[in-house]
Amino acid sequence: MRAVTQQSFGEPDVLTVGEVARPEPLITEVLVKVRAAGVNPVDAYVRAGAFPLLGEPPFVLGWDVSGVVEQVGAGVNRFAVGDEVYGMPFFPRAAGGYGEYVAAPSRHFARKPKGLDHAQAAALPLAGLTAWQALVDAARLQPGQRVLIHGGAGGVGHLAVQIAKALGAEVYATASAAKHEFVRELGADHLIDYTAGDFAEGLTDLDAVFDTVGSGTGLRSLPVLRDGGVLATITEHFDEELAARVTADGKRYAGVVVEPDHVGLEALTDLVETGRLKPFVEHVLPLEEAAQAHRLIESRRTKGKIVLAL
Amino acid sequence: MRAVTQQSFGEPDVLTVGEVARPEPLITEVLVKVRAAGVNPVDAYVRAGAFPLLGEPPFVLGWDVSGVVEQVGAGVNRFAVGDEVYGMPFFPRAAGGYGEYVAAPSRHFARKPKGLDHAQAAALPLAGLTAWQALVDAARLQPGQRVLIHGGAGGVGHLAVQIAKALGAEVYATASAAKHEFVRELGADHLIDYTAGDFAEGLTDLDAVFDTVGSGTGLRSLPVLRDGGVLATITEHFDEELAARVTADGKRYAGVVVEPDHVGLEALTDLVETGRLKPFVEHVLPLEEAAQAHRLIESRRTKGKIVLAL
Repeated sequence: MRAVTQQSFGEPDVLTVGEVARPEPLITEVLVKVRAAGVNPVDAYVRAGAFPLLGEPPFVLGWDVSGVVEQVGAGVNRFAVGDEVYGMPFFPRAAGGYGEYVAAPSRHFARKPKGLDHAQAAALPLAGLTAWQALVDAARLQPGQRVLIHGGAGGVGHLAVQIAKALGAEVYATASAAKHEFVRELGADHLIDYTAGDFAEGLTDLDAVFDTVGSGTGLRSLPVLRDGGVLATITEHFDEELAARVTADGKRYAGVVVEPDHVGLEALTDLVETGRLKPFVEHVLPLEEAAQAHRLIESRRTKGKIVLAL
Repeated sequence: MRAVTQQSFGEPDVLTVGEVARPEPLITEVLVKVRAAGVNPVDAYVRAGAFPLLGEPPFVLGWDVSGVVEQVGAGVNRFAVGDEVYGMPFFPRAAGGYGEYVAAPSRHFARKPKGLDHAQAAALPLAGLTAWQALVDAARLQPGQRVLIHGGAGGVGHLAVQIAKALGAEVYATASAAKHEFVRELGADHLIDYTAGDFAEGLTDLDAVFDTVGSGTGLRSLPVLRDGGVLATITEHFDEELAARVTADGKRYAGVVVEPDHVGLEALTDLVETGRLKPFVEHVLPLEEAAQAHRLIESRRTKGKIVLAL
């Protein structure tokens, strides 16, 4: 089958389209014909060798897919051949989304939301589950609570703003001024231009902060949290010194890395189908332009998501 | 670390205790110090080479564990070091329960039920989730419905009887006469001695049959199902001919193979803690007697579960 693969760690141009073996589904697994694959910052780290989750090349990147069930392994009855599904196969132990087919446990997938095309659906699993697991599972955000989302226009952030609103929270979000209108339309109640001054000024007693930005943003957010408030972070997700400072300050630290989770995916499907969540896809590129997709993701200037179409 | 391992496929005596490398948790994973490991029929098939899920030996078997969180990987906030957990690591792609430590995604585990010791808790994940996914996810058993469970005294069956009762169903169960009292105490409403005649005699219009026995039992169960009733089977779980016959007969076929699922595990924890589910452990053996544990599981005459203690 055709797939984007790489023979060595390196810059984006190590990514080339080639032929690789088609995966076989084991018991409990489904084989999905990939129609679109989301591109995430973690992909670029793994490609470059900065975060060698998949060992040495060659390998096929890609943890976000939307597609059609081509074959079901023994014992699977959640899906049938022909079903449209989306999911997050095998993160972080294996990958394969940048290819024609991927095989993974049925519970790494859920039914694709009606009303999204494959490119939109492929933008959702990894980033959407990240936001869901940070806000719901880790921060346990409740209706009426006040949350600050750092990076409200980004791949994870723009979904987090919508999910926090759907949970009934009052949402503060940081973004550069040019993106305020975009984030406001996602439902943010208060926009903060972090380039124009200290984001923390005037903010106090928040219930939760969700940091998708990093570079000390988490630590600088401590003063805006109430006693017992939660700092959920996906950038400094195992920073023991930060965790200790948060705890010493009477607050709760939650380092979050996303895990495949069919129940979370089903919750996202429900949010989409009830009109409360929509992924924003900034660029859809063909598989052959995976290197360009990585350059875009590494620019850190994207709004929403980047997707490869097959 | 110490683990039961094997250098070749073969009879139970290929299982010996040796030293293997301690696993390292990746991001999203926990390292669990194993206190007890459940033994399941699938373990014996893999050991013998009949079902080579783990490739060629050497490998460490074991998909059922109860133990204590020793270390958490980056991004995990569902558990902390010292938490007691139980789960079903990595089935069917990897294993490792028959050893001192196992590493797997946090969502392959849940909090160990209060009131169970580690041996009892290790008896529950694979068999309990199998029963849960068959009765709840596949058969969608409803209160007041009537279900027949084949093999009501077995490792999966004795948990299925209790789960079906907890769901509010009326439960028919087959077992040899010597085990009727055991299965009745689990909550079965009607006991059938399959050795004394045709189990189907007098049975009609059932909503569901759950077959844990095999050897044609599923097919012979079709006459007792109502139109649209469900045959859920874990023994003929990918039998296309059987599936076609079930469908042609106006009923629904659900071949079930268990998948790790933290939500299902949490449901089992809740059932245990509210007094509605208790695994029965027939034998607890030390790690050194893994071969004997496999002889017992292969005898097919066990009542409840067999567990290795570490």
